[in-house]
Amino acid sequence: MPQTLPQTSPLGISPDLSLDADFDLNKYLGELKLEVETALDESIAITYPEKIYESMRYSLLAGGKRLRPILCIAACEMLGGDRHAAMPTACAMEMVHTMSLIHDDLPALDNDDYRRGKLTNHKVYGDDIAILAGDALLAYAFEFIATQTKNVPPDRILKAIAHLGHAVAATGLVGGQVVDLECEGKADVDADTLTFIHIHKTAALLESCVICGALLAGANDTDIDRLSVYAKNIGLAFQIIDDILDITATSEQLGKTAGKDLVAQKVTYPSLWGIETSQQKALELVEQAKAQLVGYGKLAIPLMAIADYITTRQS
Amino acid sequence: MPQTLPQTSPLGISPDLSLDADFDLNKYLGELKLEVETALDESIAITYPEKIYESMRYSLLAGGKRLRPILCIAACEMLGGDRHAAMPTACAMEMVHTMSLIHDDLPALDNDDYRRGKLTNHKVYGDDIAILAGDALLAYAFEFIATQTKNVPPDRILKAIAHLGHAVAATGLVGGQVVDLECEGKADVDADTLTFIHIHKTAALLESCVICGALLAGANDTDIDRLSVYAKNIGLAFQIIDDILDITATSEQLGKTAGKDLVAQKVTYPSLWGIETSQQKALELVEQAKAQLVGYGKLAIPLMAIADYITTRQS
Repeated sequence: MPQTLPQTSPLGISPDLSLDADFDLNKYLGELKLEVETALDESIAITYPEKIYESMRYSLLAGGKRLRPILCIAACEMLGGDRHAAMPTACAMEMVHTMSLIHDDLPALDNDDYRRGKLTNHKVYGDDIAILAGDALLAYAFEFIATQTKNVPPDRILKAIAHLGHAVAATGLVGGQVVDLECEGKADVDADTLTFIHIHKTAALLESCVICGALLAGANDTDIDRLSVYAKNIGLAFQIIDDILDITATSEQLGKTAGKDLVAQKVTYPSLWGIETSQQKALELVEQAKAQLVGYGKLAIPLMAIADYITTRQS
Repeated sequence: MPQTLPQTSPLGISPDLSLDADFDLNKYLGELKLEVETALDESIAITYPEKIYESMRYSLLAGGKRLRPILCIAACEMLGGDRHAAMPTACAMEMVHTMSLIHDDLPALDNDDYRRGKLTNHKVYGDDIAILAGDALLAYAFEFIATQTKNVPPDRILKAIAHLGHAVAATGLVGGQVVDLECEGKADVDADTLTFIHIHKTAALLESCVICGALLAGANDTDIDRLSVYAKNIGLAFQIIDDILDITATSEQLGKTAGKDLVAQKVTYPSLWGIETSQQKALELVEQAKAQLVGYGKLAIPLMAIADYITTRQS
């Protein structure tokens, strides 16, 4: 592992992707998405009381890019870990992400009727069941990691559980959502506050996906530091691109209502900096992210390619 | 450990509490409650964004008997474990219990304005923050066990985390809440359905407190089986007494609205069986619970006394 490389690197250091000219990101993402969705489908069976399991499955199996579980698996494999060892944690990440979407869509929060082109959970099952389905997914995520992770020393699994808890609680995702709520309708939100929101609401869980995958593979402190910078950067870039797509893409492309931020007069990176500067910032973040992984050679190609994908995606 | 005793025992086998005539349950409960509340107070510091931490602390530190953490500690100590080893898990149990109360009180669920004589979380902080505070407490509970448990082998901690997750998810607490919601306003709820609700909504978390405390102390399968029967029985007895107190106690005594079940025409054990038969059933459950612990001698006295306390409590 690249102990001698500096912790941060200047912009513009790109990995030599010609190291593996055959790498096909779309194929990689498509195959892993399929593997993850099979595992997710098998993770929750419908039993009495059926309604809650149906509600959990409705949102968990509603599609999406499955970027979080894929990041978890890619990080584990980059450090020589086994895909199967990371799969339960990868699934747990999607359960937690789904919980956050279900609760975020509730009338008491964002009050959204559609998500990924489908009615939101509470529109189908009611607010009460949607709240409980989120709670169940969150609790089950931890149970799933603890019981389903095979061939990994228990101290590594514990570290992953601790990291995920921290990424979701008030120190992470929830903290970001709270500040986001506080900024609603305010026109004077500054870039620091916006970055706090996104680092917590979006990047914390993405980071946890990468770090937990790495922890399961036996990452050392240097690996964790590098991957943490990588993940925070792509998390922030991911959010910037999300904000840009909200302006430039159609609802059909996004599978959710487009132009919502403009209607809500929400402060976003593009509203602060303009679209062009925001795009430039996202590119810089991705370059810095990739620079962290240069020393891992060919093994880093999937994470490198995913970083690039984040700034080029259209939905 | 009592390997030779039968798994279940006939009614009426009582432990010889004269083994320790000096045991003072009130003193025991009072001292442990204080220790638990100190640990809970230290478990969450207020930092930015303050509102979410204040909301979490508001409900977590709102008093109550702290029976769940005490059961966790008592079970750990009965099997020779250290009190400090169980304390983080004991605190996590109270975090999870608090999450379930905050979410249960929401307008979308029970729509309660008061809890333990104080305004409910959403009445003070709003529905959005109350939902997020519950989510944060649930995620933090798992992080807290994973990071704060000291001097316990990691595989035992993992087992405790798995058990807690199972007790909270759709297989436990949430499942019980869903069936409870489905039975709302129905007059034809039978005893089996009522028992399903209480075994899941109330007993599952109480059982997890006892089992997780035992797991941390290195319980064997026989210990777990015995403690599981003990905990399920006292959990069910606890709920029967709760239903009776709802009829017989005042709101002032309970710290919450009394007579709610009657007003809501909710089917309860006393409404199915009458108060006297319900009391008898609770007593039988407690006797069966205590019979499980006979072989543990003096070490079982706290758990024995807590079982008795459940049927004699006035609030």
